[in-house]
Parts: sequence; C-alpha cells; structure tokens
Amino acid sequence: MPPRIVIIGGGFGGLYTARGLRHAEADITLVDRHNYHLFQPLLYQVATAALNPSDIAAPIRSIVRHQVNISVVLGDAIGIDVDAKRVQLADGMLDYDFLVVAAGATHSYFAHPEWERDAPGLKTIDDALEIRRRVLTAYEAAERESDPAKQAEWLTFVIIGAGPTGVELAGALSEIARQTMVRDFRHIKPESARVILLEGMNRVLPPYPPGLSASAKKQLESLGVEVITGAFASDVNDREVRLAGDRVIPTRTVLWAAGVQASPLAKSLGVPLDRAGRVLVEPDLTIPGHKEVFVIGDLAAVKQRDGTFVPGVAPAAIQEGQHTAYNLDRALEGQPLRAFRYRDKGSLATIGRAAAVADLGKIKLSGFLAWIAWLAIHIFFLIGFRNRFLVITQWAWAYLTYQRGARLITRDDKMSSRA
Amino acid sequence: MPPRIVIIGGGFGGLYTARGLRHAEADITLVDRHNYHLFQPLLYQVATAALNPSDIAAPIRSIVRHQVNISVVLGDAIGIDVDAKRVQLADGMLDYDFLVVAAGATHSYFAHPEWERDAPGLKTIDDALEIRRRVLTAYEAAERESDPAKQAEWLTFVIIGAGPTGVELAGALSEIARQTMVRDFRHIKPESARVILLEGMNRVLPPYPPGLSASAKKQLESLGVEVITGAFASDVNDREVRLAGDRVIPTRTVLWAAGVQASPLAKSLGVPLDRAGRVLVEPDLTIPGHKEVFVIGDLAAVKQRDGTFVPGVAPAAIQEGQHTAYNLDRALEGQPLRAFRYRDKGSLATIGRAAAVADLGKIKLSGFLAWIAWLAIHIFFLIGFRNRFLVITQWAWAYLTYQRGARLITRDDKMSSRA
Repeated sequence: MPPRIVIIGGGFGGLYTARGLRHAEADITLVDRHNYHLFQPLLYQVATAALNPSDIAAPIRSIVRHQVNISVVLGDAIGIDVDAKRVQLADGMLDYDFLVVAAGATHSYFAHPEWERDAPGLKTIDDALEIRRRVLTAYEAAERESDPAKQAEWLTFVIIGAGPTGVELAGALSEIARQTMVRDFRHIKPESARVILLEGMNRVLPPYPPGLSASAKKQLESLGVEVITGAFASDVNDREVRLAGDRVIPTRTVLWAAGVQASPLAKSLGVPLDRAGRVLVEPDLTIPGHKEVFVIGDLAAVKQRDGTFVPGVAPAAIQEGQHTAYNLDRALEGQPLRAFRYRDKGSLATIGRAAAVADLGKIKLSGFLAWIAWLAIHIFFLIGFRNRFLVITQWAWAYLTYQRGARLITRDDKMSSRA
Repeated sequence: MPPRIVIIGGGFGGLYTARGLRHAEADITLVDRHNYHLFQPLLYQVATAALNPSDIAAPIRSIVRHQVNISVVLGDAIGIDVDAKRVQLADGMLDYDFLVVAAGATHSYFAHPEWERDAPGLKTIDDALEIRRRVLTAYEAAERESDPAKQAEWLTFVIIGAGPTGVELAGALSEIARQTMVRDFRHIKPESARVILLEGMNRVLPPYPPGLSASAKKQLESLGVEVITGAFASDVNDREVRLAGDRVIPTRTVLWAAGVQASPLAKSLGVPLDRAGRVLVEPDLTIPGHKEVFVIGDLAAVKQRDGTFVPGVAPAAIQEGQHTAYNLDRALEGQPLRAFRYRDKGSLATIGRAAAVADLGKIKLSGFLAWIAWLAIHIFFLIGFRNRFLVITQWAWAYLTYQRGARLITRDDKMSSRA
C-alpha cells in the first residue's frame, strides 16, 4: 500500500503541496472545510461588489481532477494526534504516514472577541458577502433616513487596520461612494460618504518602506479616504468606534482588518507556538520531533537566517507548499529533508483604480505603473483559465463604466434563520 | 405637488410600469424588499451552478437611475389601506394617489407547509443559492459515505412538479451528474446519480400541447431523467419522498416546483381572490371600486374574453406593466382607462444543452432549434448590457467545456446562524 499523505487546507500552501506531488507514488488526501480554493488576494473585490465569488474561487476537486493520486474530502479538521498519526475530523478521522498542516489563520480581535459582531473581518467568501451586504444596506438605510445626523452615521465607513487588506478596502469603499453610487440615489449624496482608515502604528502599510507608506497615504487621500494613524480602538459597537483618548466616530459600518491569529488546530500539535498562535517550525518546515509533520503557510512561523520571520503572504505559502512537496518526494525515497529558504520577490499593495504601491527590492513603484504590475501578477496567478478570463472582462468593464456588477444584497434574514 | 404613484414590486410587472412612466409628471416610488431586479426565467441556472447571481440580477436603482421621477425604496410592504390610500411598510408607510401592486407569488405547499424545510422552492436568489448548496453538498456527502445504500440516497435527486421550472431543473441536474462532475470524484460515479421528475398530471409541461409534452419527455429521458407522471407526493421528509400508493423514493435532496401562491399582500386589498390567492381584477387591471389601484403580474387573475386566464409568465407581466403605465398616463390626463388585452406570443421551455420545446402558435419546435430560439429570446430580454454580455461568455464557455463555473458551497452553517 502506498504511503498516506494527508494535507489539511486547500489554500495556497496545501494546494501547491498537492500539485507538487503529482508524480509521487502516494495516497494523498486533501481535506478542507470548504469545497473551493479561494484566491484570497482578490477577496476584497467580492466584499466591494466588483467581482462574483466564483470569479476568485474554484472547486478544489476541479483543480486537482487530473491528479489521480489525490482524494478530496470536504471536512473540518478539529484535532491532530501526532503520536497515533491521526487527524480528527468533526465527523470522522484520517490516518496518515505524512501530514501537511496548512490550515491558515483567522481574524484576531485581541482581547475583544465581542467586537466581531459589529466589525466583521475578511477571510472567507461568506465574510465577503456579509461585508457587501452591510455596505450596500447602509446606503439604502441612509436613503430612507430623514434625520441628517443618522444619515451621516449610515454614510460613515470605518476600517480598522491599514495593512494591505485595510488599504484595499478603504480605496474600494471610497470609489463606491464617489463613482459607483453617485447617480443612483434621490435623497442622499453618496459622494458625501466618509471612509475612515484607522491604524495603530504611525503610518499605513507598516511592513513597507516609509517612502511607499507615504505615497500610499497620499493616494488614499486623493481618493477621499481619511487616514488616521496612531489610533487605537478602545471600543467598537453598532453605533460608534471609540478611540483611545475618547475621540468618538459615530458609524453603522465597521470593518476589521487589524489582526490575524493562527488556526486553533496548531494547539493540538503540542509544540511551541508564537504569540499569534503560529507553530515555530524547524528549518525544513517540520515540527520538533516529528519529521513526518509539516506546517506551512499562515499557520507556520518560519525564522529566517537574519532572525526575521517569513511574512504571511501568498507567495510565501506557495513557496512553502512547493518546497514541502519536494521534501515529501525526498522522504518517500528515503532521502533527508532540505531546509526551506524564502525568496522575497517584493511586495505589492493596491489602493484603487490605477493606484498602488510596489516594493520590488531595488525598484519601488507607485501610482499607475505599480497598479499595472499588481494587475498583471494577480491575473497571472489566478488559478484556472476560466477565472482569469472572466476577471479580465469584468474588470475591463468596471474600469470603463465605473460600475460594480455584483451589487446584490443577498442572505436576507429570513433565509439565514431558516438554514 | 405632482400626483404620487407607488409601485410595489420590482419584478417584470413593476419595473415595466415604472419605465413606461418615464415621461409622466408624477412622483413615483418603487418599493421592493430586495435591492435587485431578478431575471427569474434564468434563476434555475444559478441554482445549478452555471451562472452567478449578479449575471441575472441588477440593482433596481441602477436600472432606473436616469429616470428622475422615480425614488427607489428598499422596504417590505406588509399591508394596504385602500380607503386611506396608504401602504404599510414593515418600518414606515407610503401615501399614494395611484397604486400598482406587483408583489408576485411565492411557493405553495398546499396543505403541507412543513415540507418546505426538506423541499425548497425556487423564487429568489437566496433560494437558488440554497438549492445549489444542497445539490453540491449531496455529492460531497456521497463521496464520504461508505454504505452503498446511503450513497445512493445522496445521489438521488427528486424534483416535484414538471412545469417549466421543474423540467429545467431536472435537465440541469442530470447534466451536472453526467458531465460536470464526472471526473471529479474518486469513490463515487456521479453519472450513476438518479434525477427523478414527479408530476401529478398525466404528462410533463401540462399547459403545453400534448405533442410538445411528449417531445419534452423524450428529451428529458435522453438526458437520463426518470419521469414519473400521475404521481402525487403524500409525504416529504429529509430521507424520502412517499407517493400516493405507498411507493417510496429514498433521497436526501428534494426540490419543489409544484405550485405557487399569490403574495399575502393581496388579502389586505379586501377584494375577491381566486383559489391561488390572486386578485380578480377588472378588464383595466384595477380592483373593483378603486380605479386608482392596479394589480398586475403573478398577483393578478386576469380573465380573457374566451374565459381563460392570462398565464403567470414573464411576457404577461411585462405587457400588463406596459399597459398600466399607459393607463396611468391617461388617468393623469383625466382620460378613462382602457381594457388590457394579452397578446400570446407563444411558450418556450428549455430542457438542457441544446434541448427545448417551443409552442409559437402555428409553429411548434423541439430540440436544437427550439433551444436556439429560447437562448436568443432570453439573452435579448436580460435587462442591462453587462449582464447580457457576461451571460453569453459564461454560457459559451460552459457549452464548450461542460463546466459549471459557480460550483461553490457558500452559506455555511456558522455564518447562517451568526447572521
């Protein structure tokens, strides 16, 4: 019987591990709690009504259909017994000879889990549809409201956290207000909506070089976003965001882009974790004492030679997946594992229509050129031709007409409570 | 102050009334509980993962943005006081001088409302996404099931009702089993799935000429659908459908396409209704005693000169909407109302890839030619260029590759209960 390899998670890390094992004589099981692989870097486009869910997601089964050594299982991994070499699912179990844990991360509300209800984060398609529903509903509520103060609350959108996701959301929400919605209402002026981006550090995009942060801030402001740095939220509820120092922003729509936390699955491995709950892996991406258990992607804390950690971005997860497939091929042949080394190809963040920043090592771009680079790279990496093609048509259309095609308020209360 | 016209419902009837009033000097309010107009004839394509919701729906505001005499309100009309000339919303009210009620219909489970949970119908986008979730989840559950009998239950799909919607759903589900899914699974053979279409009458598509019914049945069977006519469900639950005569079909997925019932809003008008709850309107589509209240679309029972009723189809709602706009223009000028007359341009029903039937009066088509006619007419009527264009690209792609692009299981339980 061929060795059994179980991969938990169909994100970038898990999927690239699976694809890298296409020639392996192994019995591979890829388990994910969703039936789709999600191209997460474009998820904010679904949340802001520019793309449909299926433009950025494809069934995992479909992606690996030609790789006969893989079975795909829709299931929720809830625990790992590394001694028994067994993964516990919510409704079953999977035995393994080799395990790859690529279960990713979720939002972190630090000490305030109660904020989640009023400040949803953006990790899954359901999150994106929920954010879309809230944003579109806010304009509808403002249109029906006659009290100007209450109208202004509905037309104030606060994004907490100015990392790449927060910056992208802020830029897109500002475009919605100033371009998409502008002729659709009779009683409100959508272009009077305020989009406020809060960041605790002293600049936006903190991991980027200061020059690009400054350029990003300028581009955001020219899109109409109000940027407030050095601002920590002390309270979030359904009527306001309160900042340390007691400044209050009345708002009905708050989005959370401030922090992530590793999947709780990491705990069941019984090995040391960092503060964010990520697994401190060995240089070959295995866990201490278990050369048959690999942890990759956002769930892994991978220390580099210079003492810094590999960033939690898609290219890192892809490289770790490819490397793990290579190491598994070696392990199956009885060869020793090799250490992983991250090749940083630079960072990109988009801000809005033809606005972005790019840090490609020696080359630093901003504005239109950075946006074109961003566009080309993201379209290139979208998995599956169909998605790539449709994304181009939708974007081209949206660019030409300032429209957003997916402006539907779905998930009405009736259905949600029925399901 | 210009006269106030309130239109309840942004479906075909309400929307065509609104558009027909583009030159009217009136203060028009269009109220709908959804923010989108839905192209209902293609809703089954969303339910069967071929199209995205936004391909067949567009924000009502967007459609009427250039018509400055219209305000759009997102709201739920729950009652009408024809004496006070006032519409009660769930959270407010609207006074009118003229009222157009185009609130449509919903599913009817006859005397068995408890069947709704296990046999969802198809009227809204949320319905379609729920059906899509159930169908895709059934294949995943079958793949994980080791007991062949239980596997067969998951791979049995029952559609109750063989009107146009039931026939379309059955054809599409059969294509999913035999083409879309066929290489994606390791443990089950999707092409072994059974799709069973139940009809109480003695033939499919009962309103059509018998020859076309026979052709439709033949086309369905060549797609692999099992057609059972003269079959009434006596019980529906989450494990089986029981037929009168005690035949039992074990199944985990039942879809309801058997009956519709007018919106309960009709009752608050205080005028005679037919058995399905539709309003028995005057020849000019007003209600008895109130020349300022019009009822159109699926909510209206419109008697024709030959004693039959106008069918509950999209072309009838469109014509009634256009006629009502014409009558309102006349009323605003103090002219008497004119009687409505339905121009029947024929019926079309699609069955699957290149399979359909068309009854165009003297011309009766089936197979590929009928399908081309169906395709051309539906694309032509899709409101808004963007939708039309994208629908063509998606269909062309699906046709060439036997793929369905929107195979995502969303609305997971976590989200549904959170919302």
